[in-house]
Amino acid sequence: MPPKENPKFINIRAAEMESQFYEVLIRHKFTDEKAKLCATVFTENSLDGVYTHGVNRFPRFIRYLRDGHIDPSQQAICTNQVGCIEQWDGQKGPGPVNALLCTDRVMEIADAQGMGCIALANTNHWMRGGTYGWRAARKGFVFIGWTNTIANMPTWGAVNSKLGNNPLVIAVPYQQEAIVLDMAMSQYSYGALEFYHMKDQQLPVPGGFTREGQLTTDPGAISQSQRILPIGYWKGAGLSLLLDILAAILSGGLSVAGISRQHVEASVSQVFMAIALEKLTNYQGIASAIQMIIDDYHTSVPDKGARILYPGERVLAVRAENKLHGIPVMEEVWNEIRAL
Amino acid sequence: MPPKENPKFINIRAAEMESQFYEVLIRHKFTDEKAKLCATVFTENSLDGVYTHGVNRFPRFIRYLRDGHIDPSQQAICTNQVGCIEQWDGQKGPGPVNALLCTDRVMEIADAQGMGCIALANTNHWMRGGTYGWRAARKGFVFIGWTNTIANMPTWGAVNSKLGNNPLVIAVPYQQEAIVLDMAMSQYSYGALEFYHMKDQQLPVPGGFTREGQLTTDPGAISQSQRILPIGYWKGAGLSLLLDILAAILSGGLSVAGISRQHVEASVSQVFMAIALEKLTNYQGIASAIQMIIDDYHTSVPDKGARILYPGERVLAVRAENKLHGIPVMEEVWNEIRAL
Repeated sequence: MPPKENPKFINIRAAEMESQFYEVLIRHKFTDEKAKLCATVFTENSLDGVYTHGVNRFPRFIRYLRDGHIDPSQQAICTNQVGCIEQWDGQKGPGPVNALLCTDRVMEIADAQGMGCIALANTNHWMRGGTYGWRAARKGFVFIGWTNTIANMPTWGAVNSKLGNNPLVIAVPYQQEAIVLDMAMSQYSYGALEFYHMKDQQLPVPGGFTREGQLTTDPGAISQSQRILPIGYWKGAGLSLLLDILAAILSGGLSVAGISRQHVEASVSQVFMAIALEKLTNYQGIASAIQMIIDDYHTSVPDKGARILYPGERVLAVRAENKLHGIPVMEEVWNEIRAL
Repeated sequence: MPPKENPKFINIRAAEMESQFYEVLIRHKFTDEKAKLCATVFTENSLDGVYTHGVNRFPRFIRYLRDGHIDPSQQAICTNQVGCIEQWDGQKGPGPVNALLCTDRVMEIADAQGMGCIALANTNHWMRGGTYGWRAARKGFVFIGWTNTIANMPTWGAVNSKLGNNPLVIAVPYQQEAIVLDMAMSQYSYGALEFYHMKDQQLPVPGGFTREGQLTTDPGAISQSQRILPIGYWKGAGLSLLLDILAAILSGGLSVAGISRQHVEASVSQVFMAIALEKLTNYQGIASAIQMIIDDYHTSVPDKGARILYPGERVLAVRAENKLHGIPVMEEVWNEIRAL
């Protein structure tokens, strides 16, 4: 594959983007409330620089609606409650709506019981997992959550994809914001491979295999072989498998294997955990404990001069930049969205 | 460093090893009960092939006792209870004793409340994290647990060690046994580097940096630079940081930075979570759901002919082998233990 030509970018204000998303969603039978929720999620993901799960993903979200994989009339409902655990059925409703419902509810459970866990079956792609981590951590909760996906990654030592990249999110409150780890189990997403390929660049570290089974930093060769690499080789492969097992058995929903048999990434399973910090004996010392950890982390000596950042630190800078100058969007994508 | 000469191995029966450990522990002021618990943990870890946290680690455990870092007269006590969360103080007691107490207690909480979470401060090295995963999963629980450690790994892009390798354990019941993921956040432990160095072998995948900052598979060069690699580069670094923050703030105990200021790996912080499966609406289908996932996983097509294993699968074979033929131990190590 030859690299594509560089696309033309335009800058769109967050408010304009949000209202554009809202209009399209209303045209696709979203209620006013759900349209607002989803428009906000897609806009904030874009503001934070996660374009792959923001503006660039929006057209595909609409295709899934049109194809009936997402049912805008439905939303998640609780089907079982056992102590601090709840099992929910997403009823094929929009992924971000369902995930917001479960995030808000799991914080309520944690408020009442110290910790809460919701397992959600039969839902759709939640877009950026970090959305839910930022939301809960800003309100003072620890958040741990993950989703399974369609099979898109071979396990270590294998050539065919039997694992999902199953993004995992862990977030904690920090200053007025949060520290948010939002990581898929693959070293690079296919979106990232495409990005490097488009810019005709090699990956910074090996991201998968060539068709001949050699580890490579060539994004085009990995796209051809479809052999992306789990983080840490056998380790990320194992973590991906366990996250899938947990999501499927706790929710009673589909596993990666079950999703993959549908040939479309729908009816996925997710887990949401929250921990309320304020009843811990050491609550008064938690903010300073986190600050000490981050201060120590920031004394890391960079190998090549780049400042060492904690997970989520870069997001704050991108958010400020995009609020100031508008969100950079490929003109082609923006025109497509306006025509939806 | 030149590779060491190949050591001589002898085979020791599990029962003999356990009774040897027990005798040494009794000589070091362990009660009968605690000596039995610890002797069993060290023996089972060795039986399962995790020699680094079994027989090979035992002499260092005794040194820590003699140096006063581990207090055999103490054990963990509950200091706070909030819904399904408990905070415990390990009181510098032996790590395996404290971790067993917390594992057993977190299953009780889960039995009563669906899920339980115990955060344990001021404890000592739990040896193999998998011990607690196997234990809970064999009894029908999901187990999620982790520990922090002394700083032993640079974050991505840095040259000095500010992160722990903070092993994470996730376990689920499977057949009569368990699927157990037990993974440190470093690609290789220093123990593993030493193992490859001793055999004069290169690592299968890059495990760290040379002093000059080049990624390398040379275990000796990494031992010299002290720059081991986080799994998935920036991803495992982020996960390590978040696991440390959670362990420290949930327990109120020391973070990696705090442990490191002591210059000895003592008073670490740990988290134990358990989920009771039997009250979930889909409980009857869970065993078959896991079986379907593993069956699908086993249809992975190997790149080079090696059978694809799930996390913990290899352990079962090693355990059977070591039960049959005895546990292979370096003669030098065994003599040292007998003299303790």
